[in-house]
Amino acid sequence: MARILLTLRYDGTRYHGWQVQPNAVTVQEVLQDAVERITGVRSGITGCSRTDAGVHANMFCCAMDSDTPLRGDKLCKALNAVLPRDVAVYEAKEVAQEFHPRYDARGKRYEYRLYNGQHRHPFYEGYAVHINRPLNAELLDRAAKDYLGTHDFAAFCASGSSVEDTVRTVSHAAVRREGDLVIFSVAADGFLYNMVRIMVGTLLDISTGRIASDAIPDILASCDRDRAGVTAPACGLYLQEVYYERSDADVTQDI
Amino acid sequence: MARILLTLRYDGTRYHGWQVQPNAVTVQEVLQDAVERITGVRSGITGCSRTDAGVHANMFCCAMDSDTPLRGDKLCKALNAVLPRDVAVYEAKEVAQEFHPRYDARGKRYEYRLYNGQHRHPFYEGYAVHINRPLNAELLDRAAKDYLGTHDFAAFCASGSSVEDTVRTVSHAAVRREGDLVIFSVAADGFLYNMVRIMVGTLLDISTGRIASDAIPDILASCDRDRAGVTAPACGLYLQEVYYERSDADVTQDI
Repeated sequence: MARILLTLRYDGTRYHGWQVQPNAVTVQEVLQDAVERITGVRSGITGCSRTDAGVHANMFCCAMDSDTPLRGDKLCKALNAVLPRDVAVYEAKEVAQEFHPRYDARGKRYEYRLYNGQHRHPFYEGYAVHINRPLNAELLDRAAKDYLGTHDFAAFCASGSSVEDTVRTVSHAAVRREGDLVIFSVAADGFLYNMVRIMVGTLLDISTGRIASDAIPDILASCDRDRAGVTAPACGLYLQEVYYERSDADVTQDI
Repeated sequence: MARILLTLRYDGTRYHGWQVQPNAVTVQEVLQDAVERITGVRSGITGCSRTDAGVHANMFCCAMDSDTPLRGDKLCKALNAVLPRDVAVYEAKEVAQEFHPRYDARGKRYEYRLYNGQHRHPFYEGYAVHINRPLNAELLDRAAKDYLGTHDFAAFCASGSSVEDTVRTVSHAAVRREGDLVIFSVAADGFLYNMVRIMVGTLLDISTGRIASDAIPDILASCDRDRAGVTAPACGLYLQEVYYERSDADVTQDI
């Protein structure tokens, strides 16, 4: 049995997130189905994170244990031939037996896409959240810098979460404009449940003046979920990068 | 009755092109339905061109005659509230009674999107054509320059077309790379049936060496459809711009 790290992209629109659950289609399930079709064996597959229903991924890492002799592009091609159109694997490589895609991740980067045109945009429906009042990306970028550093992010965690340690270190937080899109990019050593979507909701409240542009340090210090903004919708969120120590993931080369 | 120029975007995936036809959903039909819902009257709407099934538009112009008092953003909002998610109007303005969106167009610009990554890409399925061998965008750009100028484009017209005059003037033709996308952009005073898709098919045959990189002038001179490349699939094609004389379309301001 080899442990194989698969890296995939998926359009999360029609999935109830990554993790297998009853009565709902998930990315983990369709990937396990695809592996079973090409290997004849149903392997357990472990993901780098849960993701919510409707969230997208440009880079999602998961590991499976399998006897398949396929590696690299051949394994990608075999899986992509049987996966649905909205999920595709673009890297497959053998890793150490003890590698774990979740616990070994040093961090992740997410992007959140806001479409800031005046009228609906057919190509962004389900792929960016439409905000039709003009957004000041420079103002939001300055406010986002207050997320940087090591803080207790309890105010930015969905209520009901059972996580005990809510301290995380944000290493990158920026807002940029690309034409009609305004994109929030954030990297951290880990994320709490709904953390990025609450960060975005807070920036949107700053954009309307409901929350002061210098209020993020106070909201962090309060550890009070009610002080932060609303949870922004799932469809604007993309998992963009998962970071591993090179030594964890690169024990063998692609074949 | 005022003549109103509507400018829209649409995701052509589920439409059989612009023009109303029996037993198939078209963009013209859903737009006429939307106009009827907000005005109570079914207006005829004239488009700037037919487009094929599956072709997309970032700018499509059409004119309707209507008694509606709505103009500008108010008319856009009213229509967008009842249009399907894959069609949206972003400009609506009154034009001269004699304005015709097709005959008054000085020209149009199309883009054709090729996704040039090694493996399938979920977000480009239906929005770019996947070519997994590496494309040399510089080579294709040089070849595309041979489309520039006034030529008989009969070799680049679908057989069976009844158009008599196949001479067109191409004012812009370029291939550029944007990350994993290779984009062909072409502007002309008019386009023959399937002209852009055959231009792209010819460039793709140049990329494999099936057609020589300097053969486009000879293919044009031959007026022989069989000498050009295959017709590339519809889903990579976007109508990007429609050009009017300012005096034609801007007789009144947005209200």
